Amino acid sequence: MTTETSLDTCSPEVTELVARLRKGDLRALARGVSLVEDDAPSAREILSGCFGTTGSAMRVGITGSPGAGKSTLVDGLARRYRAQQQTVGVVAVDPTSPYSGGAILGDRIRMRDHHDDPGFYLRSMATRGSLGGLARSSADVAMVIEASGKRRLLVETVGVGQDEIDIVRLADVTVVVLVPGMGDDVQSLKAGIMEIADIFVVNKSDRDGADNIEREVRAMQSLAADHGRDQGRWIPPVIRTVAITGEGIEELEHAVDQFWSFLAQEGRLTARREMHWRTRVMDMMHHELLRALRGRGLSNERLEAISHQVALGQRNPYQLVPQLLEQLMER
Amino acid sequence: MTTETSLDTCSPEVTELVARLRKGDLRALARGVSLVEDDAPSAREILSGCFGTTGSAMRVGITGSPGAGKSTLVDGLARRYRAQQQTVGVVAVDPTSPYSGGAILGDRIRMRDHHDDPGFYLRSMATRGSLGGLARSSADVAMVIEASGKRRLLVETVGVGQDEIDIVRLADVTVVVLVPGMGDDVQSLKAGIMEIADIFVVNKSDRDGADNIEREVRAMQSLAADHGRDQGRWIPPVIRTVAITGEGIEELEHAVDQFWSFLAQEGRLTARREMHWRTRVMDMMHHELLRALRGRGLSNERLEAISHQVALGQRNPYQLVPQLLEQLMER
Repeated sequence: MTTETSLDTCSPEVTELVARLRKGDLRALARGVSLVEDDAPSAREILSGCFGTTGSAMRVGITGSPGAGKSTLVDGLARRYRAQQQTVGVVAVDPTSPYSGGAILGDRIRMRDHHDDPGFYLRSMATRGSLGGLARSSADVAMVIEASGKRRLLVETVGVGQDEIDIVRLADVTVVVLVPGMGDDVQSLKAGIMEIADIFVVNKSDRDGADNIEREVRAMQSLAADHGRDQGRWIPPVIRTVAITGEGIEELEHAVDQFWSFLAQEGRLTARREMHWRTRVMDMMHHELLRALRGRGLSNERLEAISHQVALGQRNPYQLVPQLLEQLMER
Repeated sequence: MTTETSLDTCSPEVTELVARLRKGDLRALARGVSLVEDDAPSAREILSGCFGTTGSAMRVGITGSPGAGKSTLVDGLARRYRAQQQTVGVVAVDPTSPYSGGAILGDRIRMRDHHDDPGFYLRSMATRGSLGGLARSSADVAMVIEASGKRRLLVETVGVGQDEIDIVRLADVTVVVLVPGMGDDVQSLKAGIMEIADIFVVNKSDRDGADNIEREVRAMQSLAADHGRDQGRWIPPVIRTVAITGEGIEELEHAVDQFWSFLAQEGRLTARREMHWRTRVMDMMHHELLRALRGRGLSNERLEAISHQVALGQRNPYQLVPQLLEQLMER
């Protein structure tokens, strides 16, 4: 088997793009991010060229249900970081659901406050159908933004499914945003999300029910106290905010810093990133294999024809799949 | 590349197991299901042997939040089918979350009512970590149960994430169970789940709020009316039940039958299953490739060593992964 793109022949265009991107050129950054997001033929080369300069930035993942005020929180955090001369990159992963209406807050509106600020970069990404694909591509996009010199990476996503859990799981610090009024359901519906929180935020905490929601989180924490967790003795704090007025954002910033310091000790950050990379390396293998198969003739049309025959019971997929792989690999 | 298991040499043991299983032998069925669930070396052979006799049973997926009463509903439906001499297989996918406490209702308790009934078979499966793995394995388990002669397959799962959506998406008929008291959040939190419903059930409908929840579902349906859906003119009905008293189960059964008749027209069932198989064939490819890589020396230890080096920035994964694949494939 030979890979699709030879690694020995780096095209001069890509080499130059990466060089400009790494110097912080915003136009090169936007182009690089687009190529990576679209999984263009040059994507791997760009990522490979970016990797060497990354790893020292802080990656914060922020998740919560639609309408929880995540983007306002992220904007508030970004503003604080910028006031301290910290460069900031934001990756906003927006779900596109026919039911939720897909009210995507455009990049342009959110960029308004940062017009002409080279220390800030925001990129929105839409949810795509591919299995696990969005987690991989949002992590790749965050890495390219980091390579351009951003020191604080904020990745926000709506916490509705496994995809979103996978996305924030690739962060160093995971912030889960809750809002009063969710009642009994916090405990049940968001089970997968609750477990990955390093920090809880109760946003819109001027509403009724903020006490309740904090109590529920505490109750869950005491329930989970027996279960060994990789972060050792860290008990996720509950920060109350009113993002729209800026209340509590400073406290959130401090909580993030505290967890970052905690991670720096006893090799915790390395251990966490090792876990992340394990997932990503497997993900990249799948992706590469799929790309190789497509390059060897596994077209969408062929897949459709096979699925049609299998659905009608005319072909046995448990015999067909190994045979097909054997054929494709032998070419 | 040669595949791990030769297809030419079917072991006589497996051939006999499949033959007994297909005659409805419950002990052979339990053994076959275990081997498939554990992804044993003989799993592919068993699945291949089962495939030929399947495809005519009705596959009903039932999902909803924890505590929505799914298992009581499923038991109620199963009892009705058994009273009509229809054979029934149940696959119950249970989440194991440290927060939810993992109160798994054991097979034995739920089997109590069906003791000594060869026309009923129930299998619980635990949520495993592997990406997309549970959807594949629960679909495989359902197929083995179908091969043993069960005509109604009920697959129940907790609707908390993408995994669960993938599981019920492999059914012919998808039932989404809601309960009163979920408030505003129905619309937002369960967005991914709402879209896949062929039938809505409002269980515990004797509680306050049943009207509200039905109104919310109707509102969402009118919002989504513009979006083309593969089921053509089907508008998912909302069935009210009190599963614990049996109220509404008959209506649910009728709704399932109606949708089944609807699917039978204009090639809708084939089109739907074709879509399912497309997903599953890709899934099986990934699975086979992974198995092949493991057989060629990609051990967990090696993966861990790689992830460690990548996390420390010592190795570039974007160069490493294609090289690694090339090496593994050339053996």
